[in-house]
Amino acid sequence: MATFIPRLAKAQQKVAASNLDAVLISSPAATTYLSGCYLLTQTVIPEREAYVLITREGSISYLVCNIEEKMAREDSWIEDVQTYVEFKEAPATAVAKLLQQKCPNPRRIGLEPRALSAHSYQLLQQALPHCEFVSWDQPIAELMMIKEPDEIAALETAGRVTLAAITKALTEAMPGSSERTVFTAMMTDMMTQGLLPMFNVFTSGPNTLLVHGEPGSRILQPGDLIRLDVGGRWPSHYLSDMARTAVVGPPSSAQASNYQKLFQAQRETIEAVRPGIPVSELYQVCAQSYARQQIPFTMPHIGHSMGIGLHEYPLIHPGETAVLQPGMVLNIEPFLADTSRGEGYHVEDLVLVTESGYRLLTTPTPELIQLPV
Amino acid sequence: MATFIPRLAKAQQKVAASNLDAVLISSPAATTYLSGCYLLTQTVIPEREAYVLITREGSISYLVCNIEEKMAREDSWIEDVQTYVEFKEAPATAVAKLLQQKCPNPRRIGLEPRALSAHSYQLLQQALPHCEFVSWDQPIAELMMIKEPDEIAALETAGRVTLAAITKALTEAMPGSSERTVFTAMMTDMMTQGLLPMFNVFTSGPNTLLVHGEPGSRILQPGDLIRLDVGGRWPSHYLSDMARTAVVGPPSSAQASNYQKLFQAQRETIEAVRPGIPVSELYQVCAQSYARQQIPFTMPHIGHSMGIGLHEYPLIHPGETAVLQPGMVLNIEPFLADTSRGEGYHVEDLVLVTESGYRLLTTPTPELIQLPV
Repeated sequence: MATFIPRLAKAQQKVAASNLDAVLISSPAATTYLSGCYLLTQTVIPEREAYVLITREGSISYLVCNIEEKMAREDSWIEDVQTYVEFKEAPATAVAKLLQQKCPNPRRIGLEPRALSAHSYQLLQQALPHCEFVSWDQPIAELMMIKEPDEIAALETAGRVTLAAITKALTEAMPGSSERTVFTAMMTDMMTQGLLPMFNVFTSGPNTLLVHGEPGSRILQPGDLIRLDVGGRWPSHYLSDMARTAVVGPPSSAQASNYQKLFQAQRETIEAVRPGIPVSELYQVCAQSYARQQIPFTMPHIGHSMGIGLHEYPLIHPGETAVLQPGMVLNIEPFLADTSRGEGYHVEDLVLVTESGYRLLTTPTPELIQLPV
Repeated sequence: MATFIPRLAKAQQKVAASNLDAVLISSPAATTYLSGCYLLTQTVIPEREAYVLITREGSISYLVCNIEEKMAREDSWIEDVQTYVEFKEAPATAVAKLLQQKCPNPRRIGLEPRALSAHSYQLLQQALPHCEFVSWDQPIAELMMIKEPDEIAALETAGRVTLAAITKALTEAMPGSSERTVFTAMMTDMMTQGLLPMFNVFTSGPNTLLVHGEPGSRILQPGDLIRLDVGGRWPSHYLSDMARTAVVGPPSSAQASNYQKLFQAQRETIEAVRPGIPVSELYQVCAQSYARQQIPFTMPHIGHSMGIGLHEYPLIHPGETAVLQPGMVLNIEPFLADTSRGEGYHVEDLVLVTESGYRLLTTPTPELIQLPV
């Protein structure tokens, strides 16, 4: 390796310390993480697979479709870039050949069963009939879980740009605008600042209970609640993911009260963040805040880590056994469904676990954002 | 079923005519196709699986994460909506239970190994140890291949809006704009017309050879080639996918000549489209046009079908045995790499196979689009 890449060194150590002969990484997020190269088609054309192969001896190769070779050579810090030709050879068959070159007589191979397709897994089994395949879902997730300073900076910038775009589009919306108009202004602002669109939940009025509703032509009415959850990629592959709730004109007392309770639950959860506590404790803190405030708590999870992947390990759910460590980031995103009013409230902010507690990477919004009337 | 849905009836017939007890559909495109419901999280959070289950007896169920239940009930025409709770139960385990309720003592089950994760496949094998699993990748692809009139109308609208936005953003670009500025104007126009952003290749000058490069801060210079390949979803889940090449100011004679040859190859390929010919013949027609015009032909495929999925079956490659049928749509997208100039040229248009030949769903652009200088 011409340049020393700490995450590759850590991955090599993990493989060397395991009882595996090699590891085949194939998920879009993890291959991007290890290679430094973001290949758009890995997500939009999933069958165009890319692999990072790490052997027990420490060799690292990056296998991509030949269509992506130029980008891989320019953007990746992995020097050994290999290619396959689509339709001539299945990517899994090509990586099995590469594996046998780099690691003669392999016996035990780590891979990502949650990301790899059953089809590619079957091809690997056929090409490597004497190999045992072992899940490396968890080791790679744990490697990616502790963010490096550059990653934290990218996530913080992406979050800051996203929050600024959300706030501007909502507070400067023209009265009588549609969901689509306000959403478009928000995304335009994000793109102008260099974020590429990633996902887009934007709902108003009765649609705010649709957890992942997308913007439509509905005209925003005074008193309407607006709930959005949007994200982008910056500079090429670190994500933002941010939920906010707003109201057209002044909120009703019920709306203001609902939001205050949700914000309070988010604040209590964030304030509980410190190294050494179980992730599941954050879930319990949030649930207890809901109970104390007598609002219905129904979420299977209340947040997740994030980086190149949207839902990275760990997710904040009651069965999670991970313990918070410095360098982890967590999106804390409680949701409140007021079914009597037919309204959904949502906030989401990104928090870094520090040596002594936490640092906010995005700034929570203590009041409902108001659109002009 | 309250409403008669032709595609569901066809799917039921296909299952009944097979030797399978049931079929489990899990790919985002095919579950959307069968259910009529687009779940954003199926692609951005792939582990949040959704399934359509069709039994030999004709029962149809739709299993979604309970977070998406409201949307599934509102948007899907499948009446039997079932849910699982994330982290309490793996989706594959939940669908195995549902399968045993709907289809006692199943023996042979169809599924989509190219879309299903190896992890979920293993969970299905554990939950249904007496079942044989058979690939239904091909039958579902063939079902989706013939487009219904509403689908063709959606694809045509999405393509028309996309082409208008591309043309407007390029021909009205301010001199001295960056890639990002022109790209943002294009996407803003698309979103204003109701398309949601899907993917975004936008390259200029030396980056035009990066097949899937994304927009950056590079300032567009007179004489620069611009190559883009963008798409969106309309109204919620039919795609556009369109490539165009442009130049800042008047093209050089080499640029104009390269484009004319590429356009000629696209035209000859489109004119060869008619029912009854093998898809691979289109590839050969394109390759022969390149050879006759003495330009290098290096593409593993020169196009693909499209609908809810970006690369739907069939792709236009030399090994494809499918034969063109009325109702198929094909994106015809030759690419020309002029490595001596360091430039990549690309066009992509959508064609419908009709009873007598073809109909263009988007209008090819016979000259390089010019940006003002």
